[in-house]
Amino acid sequence: MTSFTKHAKNFYAIIPAGGVGSRLWPLSRADAPKFLLDLTGSGKSLLESTYDRLVPLTGPENIFVVTGYAHRNAVTSQLPEVVETNIFLEPSPKDSTAAICIAAAILLRRDPDAIVGSFPADHLVAAPAEFRHVVREAIAVAQDGYISTIGISPTEPSTAFGYIETGEPIDPSRFAEAQHVARFVEKPVHDLAERYVADGNHLWNAGMFIAKASVLLDVLRENRPRLADTIDRIADAWGTSEQFLRKDKLWDELEKVAIDYAIAEPAARDGKVAVVPGDFGWDDVGDFSAIARHIANRGAGSLAILGDQARVISDGSSGIVVGETDRVVAVIGLEDVVIVDTADALLVTNTANAQRIKQMVDLLRSTGRGDVL
Amino acid sequence: MTSFTKHAKNFYAIIPAGGVGSRLWPLSRADAPKFLLDLTGSGKSLLESTYDRLVPLTGPENIFVVTGYAHRNAVTSQLPEVVETNIFLEPSPKDSTAAICIAAAILLRRDPDAIVGSFPADHLVAAPAEFRHVVREAIAVAQDGYISTIGISPTEPSTAFGYIETGEPIDPSRFAEAQHVARFVEKPVHDLAERYVADGNHLWNAGMFIAKASVLLDVLRENRPRLADTIDRIADAWGTSEQFLRKDKLWDELEKVAIDYAIAEPAARDGKVAVVPGDFGWDDVGDFSAIARHIANRGAGSLAILGDQARVISDGSSGIVVGETDRVVAVIGLEDVVIVDTADALLVTNTANAQRIKQMVDLLRSTGRGDVL
Repeated sequence: MTSFTKHAKNFYAIIPAGGVGSRLWPLSRADAPKFLLDLTGSGKSLLESTYDRLVPLTGPENIFVVTGYAHRNAVTSQLPEVVETNIFLEPSPKDSTAAICIAAAILLRRDPDAIVGSFPADHLVAAPAEFRHVVREAIAVAQDGYISTIGISPTEPSTAFGYIETGEPIDPSRFAEAQHVARFVEKPVHDLAERYVADGNHLWNAGMFIAKASVLLDVLRENRPRLADTIDRIADAWGTSEQFLRKDKLWDELEKVAIDYAIAEPAARDGKVAVVPGDFGWDDVGDFSAIARHIANRGAGSLAILGDQARVISDGSSGIVVGETDRVVAVIGLEDVVIVDTADALLVTNTANAQRIKQMVDLLRSTGRGDVL
Repeated sequence: MTSFTKHAKNFYAIIPAGGVGSRLWPLSRADAPKFLLDLTGSGKSLLESTYDRLVPLTGPENIFVVTGYAHRNAVTSQLPEVVETNIFLEPSPKDSTAAICIAAAILLRRDPDAIVGSFPADHLVAAPAEFRHVVREAIAVAQDGYISTIGISPTEPSTAFGYIETGEPIDPSRFAEAQHVARFVEKPVHDLAERYVADGNHLWNAGMFIAKASVLLDVLRENRPRLADTIDRIADAWGTSEQFLRKDKLWDELEKVAIDYAIAEPAARDGKVAVVPGDFGWDDVGDFSAIARHIANRGAGSLAILGDQARVISDGSSGIVVGETDRVVAVIGLEDVVIVDTADALLVTNTANAQRIKQMVDLLRSTGRGDVL
């Protein structure tokens, strides 16, 4: 029953669907990465939810997914409405610049007026209508030649996100919220994060970029001409009999670089980046404490359960249990515990140590237990 | 290479092998009770270790096991040297008085001078030679007509054990250590336990009793004539064609009562009980913190591992992991954690809450999850 009547003209959504989500091991795996998982018990994966909140803006025909070969079947099965010509399969991960700009270059060749927005496949948005409202303003600003980004009003001094320092309004008569981006700042230490939240001039960088495809690729060419050239050559062959051969031949040449470094930061220094502040219940669900916050159906006490509720028995415990097996899980007297029970691996920690899971994954890999990663 | 040359004359060891060990769930189960398990990684079950430390005193032919029908195969498989006529199978649990006194009554009919010692099947002893030294004195005292018990020198003000208040020495010229038992006292509260440990007149009650079979049964008859009578009738038929019929017919009549109440306490009031103090690394391994203390091979940090060491990866954690599956278990930043990973049930708690496992087991039973008990 989704209405497509409000499609933004010439607007295309690019969904880079990559990244394992190491901090969510052993739930998230190489062959079952975060974006393919339902992390909140909603019945939909993060990728499906990302599609669902974008499709009213684009229609199914204007959604373009970039993912790895390994995930082709899972992606087409979760998103059957996305046509094959809108799925670009990467031979290996090349970071966000290549993923997004190859898609932009392909779309530019189909539509010279294309406006593209890139949206990570593994984030959560609690208020999709408000999200679309914000994206619409970002699209309008992009029509003026800006690279628009979305900035999330911070609710706490998080050290897990990069921040956007806001500048002057773009044009208050035409755009209710859009401001210039003064600069992008790295993930801060706690004290600095507190100052950012207090000064009212900083927003969380949600990693979303909206721009004319031509603008995006022009900025890339200025800053990374060789990368832009390789991307162009791959895109030129797309839709021809040579498309796979060309891609495979040139793939190793692609520089691995985040779009923040290759495009967003240099463009911001030139005053070409706008930010539209948004407040739509965004979360990158980067660790298990984030998942616990988002699970609506909590069991006895304050223990969040992802999986079969009836199998988890808690006596005076809080935190989260993720159950992928059919075993009984009994938890007694533990606060903020994190238990992830999968067929071949069990993780037990607490929310305060959830960030150390990544190192545990590195340890498992280096000690020959890559089979459970 | 065990030497049987020092067998105590007419001495028989009774091993009551019962009790599930609810506080060790989900490791200990109805069909895999504590006494059948190897809780320390020694390669032997508690029952096997109990047999091993008694057999130098008795020889294999003088060891008598009382257990439930359900454990017949496991017991005969673990103790192949115990002959079938020395294994009494209980149709249902009837507490310690029936188990020990039926065995004593059967042995009395074979040997009117029998001295019997009953030793729980699910305790640990670190120094078996010292244990046997203490038991030998207890046997000598029993020759004089006393019911001897073994009292463990307390190492801490434990509230998990009953205590024995010691009285006058029995006969220092003949017995180095034996004293009268002034009285048995129940598990104390902490303050009282501290006083017991401080006053030097209290020992832990290890639940071992050594006496002439005739003395034991005479005291029973004085205090529980009906129970003594039923036991006699079952023992009279033992070894005849009627033995199973008689047992099954009379079984429901047996009063369920602990030997402490039916025999030891009344006998102590009559001055008939002696205690030999012992210090041989005794532990009843009643919960997972006890198991953690006894596991020699500790992994990284101070995490004790019972099961395959290589499967457990710990980052800054202490406590115990019991692994019965072939899954990887990763533990991060948890102190005194207790993780018990079995095929159909997972328990996560910490040592401070290990005593609450019993209630969890009750909860599982009352909520229809008896299948994992």
